Amino acid sequence: MAQYKVPVLPGDGIGPEIIVEGKKVIDAAGEKFGFDVDWIEYPHGADHYLETGELISEDSLKELSNYEAIYLGSIGDDRIEPGVLEKGILLAARFYFDQYINLRPIKLLEGVWCPIKDKTPKDVDFVVVRENTEDFYIGIGGRAKTGMSKDLLEVNRTLYNAKFGLDIETDSEEIAYQIGMISKEGTQRVMNYSFDLAETREKHVSSVDKANVLSDIYGFWREEFNTIAANHPDVKTDFNFVDAITMWFVKNPEWFDVVVTPNMFGDIITDLGAMVQGGLGLAPGGNINPNGTSMFEPIHGSAPKYKGQNKVNPIATIWAGAMLIEQLGEKEAADSIVSAIEKNILEAKVQTYDMGGSNGTSDVGDDIARILLEQ
Amino acid sequence: MAQYKVPVLPGDGIGPEIIVEGKKVIDAAGEKFGFDVDWIEYPHGADHYLETGELISEDSLKELSNYEAIYLGSIGDDRIEPGVLEKGILLAARFYFDQYINLRPIKLLEGVWCPIKDKTPKDVDFVVVRENTEDFYIGIGGRAKTGMSKDLLEVNRTLYNAKFGLDIETDSEEIAYQIGMISKEGTQRVMNYSFDLAETREKHVSSVDKANVLSDIYGFWREEFNTIAANHPDVKTDFNFVDAITMWFVKNPEWFDVVVTPNMFGDIITDLGAMVQGGLGLAPGGNINPNGTSMFEPIHGSAPKYKGQNKVNPIATIWAGAMLIEQLGEKEAADSIVSAIEKNILEAKVQTYDMGGSNGTSDVGDDIARILLEQ
Ligand SMILES: CC(C)[C@H](C(=O)O)[C@@H](O)C(=O)O
Ligand SMILES: CC(C)[C@H](C(=O)O)[C@@H](O)C(=O)O
Repeated sequence: MAQYKVPVLPGDGIGPEIIVEGKKVIDAAGEKFGFDVDWIEYPHGADHYLETGELISEDSLKELSNYEAIYLGSIGDDRIEPGVLEKGILLAARFYFDQYINLRPIKLLEGVWCPIKDKTPKDVDFVVVRENTEDFYIGIGGRAKTGMSKDLLEVNRTLYNAKFGLDIETDSEEIAYQIGMISKEGTQRVMNYSFDLAETREKHVSSVDKANVLSDIYGFWREEFNTIAANHPDVKTDFNFVDAITMWFVKNPEWFDVVVTPNMFGDIITDLGAMVQGGLGLAPGGNINPNGTSMFEPIHGSAPKYKGQNKVNPIATIWAGAMLIEQLGEKEAADSIVSAIEKNILEAKVQTYDMGGSNGTSDVGDDIARILLEQ
Repeated sequence: MAQYKVPVLPGDGIGPEIIVEGKKVIDAAGEKFGFDVDWIEYPHGADHYLETGELISEDSLKELSNYEAIYLGSIGDDRIEPGVLEKGILLAARFYFDQYINLRPIKLLEGVWCPIKDKTPKDVDFVVVRENTEDFYIGIGGRAKTGMSKDLLEVNRTLYNAKFGLDIETDSEEIAYQIGMISKEGTQRVMNYSFDLAETREKHVSSVDKANVLSDIYGFWREEFNTIAANHPDVKTDFNFVDAITMWFVKNPEWFDVVVTPNMFGDIITDLGAMVQGGLGLAPGGNINPNGTSMFEPIHGSAPKYKGQNKVNPIATIWAGAMLIEQLGEKEAADSIVSAIEKNILEAKVQTYDMGGSNGTSDVGDDIARILLEQ
């Protein structure tokens, strides 16, 4: 019998409750398909930080890097300034393990209420591949008074003057700035992944950028996209400005097959995508390093106000669990979990409030595990 | 009789066709309300650029600065690399005239088909105030090989190492980067405007940011928001991460009254907002400098594939025209244009294809002008 060791970070807020359901369903799948998972719990999150001052240490990360896949609940707590936990744990892990693919399926399941008119499951079935280690997520920035500000504004003026013959004056003495960066390797690897994925699907890759304004960073993105696209003459491609793609996600989701996007825009459009597929309670994601340690999580946050109420929908987490065991090689079990989720939704007997039901988090986990074992 | 001089930049693609309808309706309003507009045409756009090599000169901008309001069609052409016209004309004007407010009403008019289920005009009626001169729109960025790259990566490493005790390695030899900047004055003035606006509405201001990741630039934004909010204790406030707000725009548009947002996020969420209000054909915007030269435009682009076909919806442009004459002090005439638009839509007799009709651009302009004169 196959044996897997999987580290679990339940995290904050509703994290622990939903992770319990995810493990429950994976354990049921193990029973059925003949594998066993040894769950190794990690305490990192808000409470641990408040108690010990530690976010996640390099030692813990090194230890975690011995595993192929981590199961993550959710990170974030109102008691702590925004960004501290997110950057110190979630982004630290994505960067440390070089999980350069953030894979987010946008799939409207049969029986799910879609907030968009006239869209059915056949219209909403695409995948967003979000670059996950670069762009504006690198965390470089700062504040400046006169010195730096004058320099930066000088660059600005020079640039506009040179390009457009203008003389723009700004004399603020206090500024904040942020720097984004993408590299050739970082861009090419996520595009290669996207084109390879499209080859197994509808052979269509849509790129997202804002090359008409953030031309330096996203002009480069476009060039690399064209380079990689040239290796896949059978794949249809298009460029989408990030502002416009928010419209198409609502109006024409059926247009998309694989969407490849820089990190920050990917963050934004996948929340919208989650809504189009029926809500955050149904949206899973995988942070993937194909040759290293990956990490699977629901894309929703820690929803502190629902903590401990056995109220929220565990489906995103259970679905992320299916992605996790697929990564471990248990494809059949993964498919079986997704089809159990689909049956639970179609039967519409055991559902949480967000889907119009009145059951608890654990009821839904139980029901999906039951269906899985029976099917 | 009041006399106004208004510069017009019809621009590219469908720009000239829709601007003709906008002028037609404003002229009708002038007839009815006793004012006269002298339209001064400017040629700037793709054709002019291809013929002369000029985008827009400082002389032209200086000349334009003698006027209170400019009427703009749309800028952008497939024959030219993305960004050249947009930055060289549209953004150059926004920056040159220091039009720090980009005002975008998101209002679902009675009779308009909303793509979101269960939402009616009373649910969709808010205003986005987009900062319009700073953030990632300043156009600072570049590419680097070893030298710069090593420096930047060094900052990155140092930052992550210091903050999180990590050692992140990246060794790309070729990168592209982009810098965003916001200033204290730039942030405060757009927030003051937003709170003043909210005082005349539902007294609720929602701020947009991504302070949990782009903490340097948007942590500063939050602080300034709190500073200005303290002067308005009667105004309800909240913070929204940009990813989450795309969901709320779809799920709970009724929540919003005034939304204040940094430039780039404002670009993204107002396209989504336009979709929620029934489509880009219905979404107007104003680039406003309350003490200088403002500029009004539809928020849609130049749609080159529809150029010269008398096909697209002129309503966004006509509505932008109403905002323009309101800025000139003709509030009654402006209201009358908006109510003529509403009647045209409710009657549903003369409509372009995007609204399910089969009429042309000019038919809709004629119809709105007729209704205006008759009402
Ligand atoms: C919590 C936050 C740092 C994170 C992100 O911005 O990537 C989240 O929004 C996500 O999409 O996974
Ligand atoms: C054309 C483009 C430069 C512009 C922008 O990004 O501001 C447009 O999308 C808008 O929203 O007015």
